[in-house]
Amino acid sequence: MLAEVITIGDELLLGQTIDTNSAWMGAELTKHGIALHRITSISDAPAEITAALEEAMSRVDLVLVTGGLGPTRDDLTKETLASFFGMPLVMNEQVLNQITHWFENRGMEMLPVNRDQAMLPEGCEILPNLRGTAMGMWFQKGDEVSPKVVVSLPGVPYEMKGLMEEEVLPRVQKIWKLPKRYHRTVLTQGIGESFLSALIEDWEDGLEERGIHIAYLPAPGQVRVRFSAVDDLEDAAVRRVEEALEEFLELAGQHVVALDEMSLPEAVVQSLVENNCTIATAESCTGGSIAASITAVPGSSAVFQGSIVAYANAVKQQMLGVAAKDLEVHGAVSEPVVMQMAKGVREKLGTTYGLATSGIAGPSGGTALKPVGTIWVGLAGPKGVVARKFQLGDHRGRNVSKTVLLALAWILEDLKQKDSQRS
Amino acid sequence: MLAEVITIGDELLLGQTIDTNSAWMGAELTKHGIALHRITSISDAPAEITAALEEAMSRVDLVLVTGGLGPTRDDLTKETLASFFGMPLVMNEQVLNQITHWFENRGMEMLPVNRDQAMLPEGCEILPNLRGTAMGMWFQKGDEVSPKVVVSLPGVPYEMKGLMEEEVLPRVQKIWKLPKRYHRTVLTQGIGESFLSALIEDWEDGLEERGIHIAYLPAPGQVRVRFSAVDDLEDAAVRRVEEALEEFLELAGQHVVALDEMSLPEAVVQSLVENNCTIATAESCTGGSIAASITAVPGSSAVFQGSIVAYANAVKQQMLGVAAKDLEVHGAVSEPVVMQMAKGVREKLGTTYGLATSGIAGPSGGTALKPVGTIWVGLAGPKGVVARKFQLGDHRGRNVSKTVLLALAWILEDLKQKDSQRS
Repeated sequence: MLAEVITIGDELLLGQTIDTNSAWMGAELTKHGIALHRITSISDAPAEITAALEEAMSRVDLVLVTGGLGPTRDDLTKETLASFFGMPLVMNEQVLNQITHWFENRGMEMLPVNRDQAMLPEGCEILPNLRGTAMGMWFQKGDEVSPKVVVSLPGVPYEMKGLMEEEVLPRVQKIWKLPKRYHRTVLTQGIGESFLSALIEDWEDGLEERGIHIAYLPAPGQVRVRFSAVDDLEDAAVRRVEEALEEFLELAGQHVVALDEMSLPEAVVQSLVENNCTIATAESCTGGSIAASITAVPGSSAVFQGSIVAYANAVKQQMLGVAAKDLEVHGAVSEPVVMQMAKGVREKLGTTYGLATSGIAGPSGGTALKPVGTIWVGLAGPKGVVARKFQLGDHRGRNVSKTVLLALAWILEDLKQKDSQRS
Repeated sequence: MLAEVITIGDELLLGQTIDTNSAWMGAELTKHGIALHRITSISDAPAEITAALEEAMSRVDLVLVTGGLGPTRDDLTKETLASFFGMPLVMNEQVLNQITHWFENRGMEMLPVNRDQAMLPEGCEILPNLRGTAMGMWFQKGDEVSPKVVVSLPGVPYEMKGLMEEEVLPRVQKIWKLPKRYHRTVLTQGIGESFLSALIEDWEDGLEERGIHIAYLPAPGQVRVRFSAVDDLEDAAVRRVEEALEEFLELAGQHVVALDEMSLPEAVVQSLVENNCTIATAESCTGGSIAASITAVPGSSAVFQGSIVAYANAVKQQMLGVAAKDLEVHGAVSEPVVMQMAKGVREKLGTTYGLATSGIAGPSGGTALKPVGTIWVGLAGPKGVVARKFQLGDHRGRNVSKTVLLALAWILEDLKQKDSQRS
């Protein structure tokens, strides 16, 4: 079964909003055995909406539309759909009630434009939106054997997600008999896409024949590898993918830091929990980003004590015990300083690990000896304090996010060594 | 002049990668007076690539394609384009040299798959990629009066951006006479889209007639409003938009926190600099995210001293001087604790402002009295210490990012009051 997504909004084409909805929908559809065939983003123009709908309906049986349902006058999706399906807009009293309550519950005044959101196409199925005032709409054409469905959803991500999970996907599963698709992914760190591909080349050659599809998803410093299979029988798809995964881990397991959708911070938290270790960070150039990425993981409080974001040198001295002399002689971006920061935060916060960063994130502040992108990471642990130097690029944001990855990967590496020393 | 973007990659449809390229390209095209007409995302399948190309070329004169140029075998864009334009792939010695140097400079081994990246369609114009090993390609059809151009770019964002800025946009400006488009945006905070719209309704009615287009871009807790105009004369477009912006600020200026693409953290840093103030944060539930968002702004070191991410209660006591008794009696998520955190970090780090957060981000950890989403924000400043309580939702990530916005907006609000007291 094929589906398409149409996202509507001038802001998408003008580049003021990144479309995160379609990626989420793609992942959900995939999980349910539906292949997302195409994503189309168009403006809030009725002619464009109509054209994109006609094209998508000619290619696939399920078209999911998001956006353009807001209360302001640049939102034209509802009117266009009503006219496309030849359904007049009528006041839906039940929805009007729901919207009225929505505003009452929040102690907010309801405006005429919000009242208009209860004007809905007569004859479509209303999908109640419990998180906002724009309802979902389900339009169905064709007979029971080969139905064509268009679903209109609000563009606000969490409203769209709620409607997908509670209304759309259950209906879709009832209507279509879906083949089973299964996939798993591994996250590798510190090996480039080409090298990884070369490492598994001979084995990879035979995969397609075995009904296993492999894909590489590179990100800075990381490559995610996805194995997938489609089959009428769920067991068959699962077995094929699990076999492939096991074989891959034999060949390239040393580069794998996490399985499936697990992120690197999730893998770090899990590994710290398993090893009964705790961590604190002392951050200069990363400015709290390591702490933020760890605490984004639910349950991280079991292993994460806190962080001292020592942006100013005075804070490095006062809160972390960095020697004034070393700051003067070697500068803040140096091996002795980052080692003292790591040691300092470990001691102050009483953790197994102290992780520290100090670098020149850019875009300015570089010198001939320490150009922009010079980053020191320090790790203090039960075995002592070590520092590593990285020479990254000239983009502030990327330097910070790469440093976060490198620092977290280092913790995992150290925990793995600990494991292997034990066994 | 109209353009379309085609992004290629199974990972986009499977939802494993969010397409950030097309938003960036949309913003750049808009800046250059080119209207992005449609964005299409398709899989790495030659038949899909060919179909999408044919459709886009029938609608617009410029088609920008990203993705599918990597060295691995799931990347099929180059081969498909070569066959679509009837150009054989031949070894380009100059590019081969460049790729060889690229690997030498990094001390990395070059693999046969990387060598193959120098096999390029004979007759297309090569756009040298200085940041990676996948070259850009420029295919031109038609005559000089009405050329049709297809450009293929790598999917790695910073490689694509470099090629767009250095190669694609300069060429586009040479070929087409572009109308001038001008736009400005304002960022409002703390007022819903409907209320904002109602506030300016009468005035908004006349905008389209005056050749000014308005759009609302809502985000959690914020609405960005964009005013744009298109004209053959740049002056005319600029004048119309600037007039509209001035009128809008008259009507709704009290809700505006930042102008143009300036983010809230950028506005905070700028306002702190202008007011000669400094700041430090004491973060529990935000886990360093406020510090990370401030330090993401280049030059923030002028106003940001540091942060104490006090995730564990012991850290709140030891590093921030929170009273053990208050933690015990009121709990960490309480008015007295967040006020002591704010006061503590302000005193310890010697800043004008101390900003603190403590809350239950979720997904678990809530109680009847303090459900998930209960967030306290404390602000210590020259006038004393104040705390505010917010009741947010049940989504951990959204609770954190909303708290960051609310906390930063509070700083701006306080600085504005300071301004108005002065004047």
